[in-house]
Amino acid sequence: MSVTATVKWTGGLQFVGESGTGHAIVLDAAPEDGGTNMGMRPMELLAVAIGSCSGMDIVSVLRKKRQKISDCTVHVSGELEPDYPHRCVSMDIEWVITGERVSEEAVKHAVELSMEKYCSVKATLEHSAKISFRYRIVNQ
Amino acid sequence: MSVTATVKWTGGLQFVGESGTGHAIVLDAAPEDGGTNMGMRPMELLAVAIGSCSGMDIVSVLRKKRQKISDCTVHVSGELEPDYPHRCVSMDIEWVITGERVSEEAVKHAVELSMEKYCSVKATLEHSAKISFRYRIVNQ
Repeated sequence: MSVTATVKWTGGLQFVGESGTGHAIVLDAAPEDGGTNMGMRPMELLAVAIGSCSGMDIVSVLRKKRQKISDCTVHVSGELEPDYPHRCVSMDIEWVITGERVSEEAVKHAVELSMEKYCSVKATLEHSAKISFRYRIVNQ
Repeated sequence: MSVTATVKWTGGLQFVGESGTGHAIVLDAAPEDGGTNMGMRPMELLAVAIGSCSGMDIVSVLRKKRQKISDCTVHVSGELEPDYPHRCVSMDIEWVITGERVSEEAVKHAVELSMEKYCSVKATLEHSAKISFRYRIVNQ
């Protein structure tokens, strides 16, 4: 199994990344680092990656468990070392699951499956960053 | 220093990730995994991240060294473990630098600075994935 990307310079410190499945994203540095903030920072991609990867797992499991969910919002925050190369040393993830009579047991199990078995991004990043996580259920 | 993201479910296995700096990207799973391929896979973000992060370093250093570069294209390929959770175990990076009388010494030094000192994504991923890299210079 593999993942691929081609990332092309588009002037200044701006790049366009195209993934092997044909989707694109603009990356840029902050103005204080010589960029123009026309796209995401590369390190922000790691936060988006762990939020979306775990979110897909959890939504997928909850639907198999016939839970009526109407929203899943994932908040991710990563701490970087203050010195170069600013390695990511910790990531905190919070899943907020909204729905109708969503069972806490089902959410707990979905989170466990993602964090212990399925989430590829977590399994990769946890070798550098301490991963902490929690969930919140909003039954409406 | 920190990075943040909020990732929101938009139906099926599709999510929209918004980074702390206000930029957004659509993520989706492959049809064979229950998705609709309307966006990048989360693990592809890691390949885009290391390509763009190292690309920014190298372009930045080469411009400080007054090198006349007209293009920088980064090819990234990552290998994942065949079994769950499909952790990324290696990443290969190739930078193709196009320009006019670009000095090999300058490119070699820029690559060393990125890989050994500056690239935050490399410094994070190398704890899980063996990182290999090479460069190619196209003088026109």
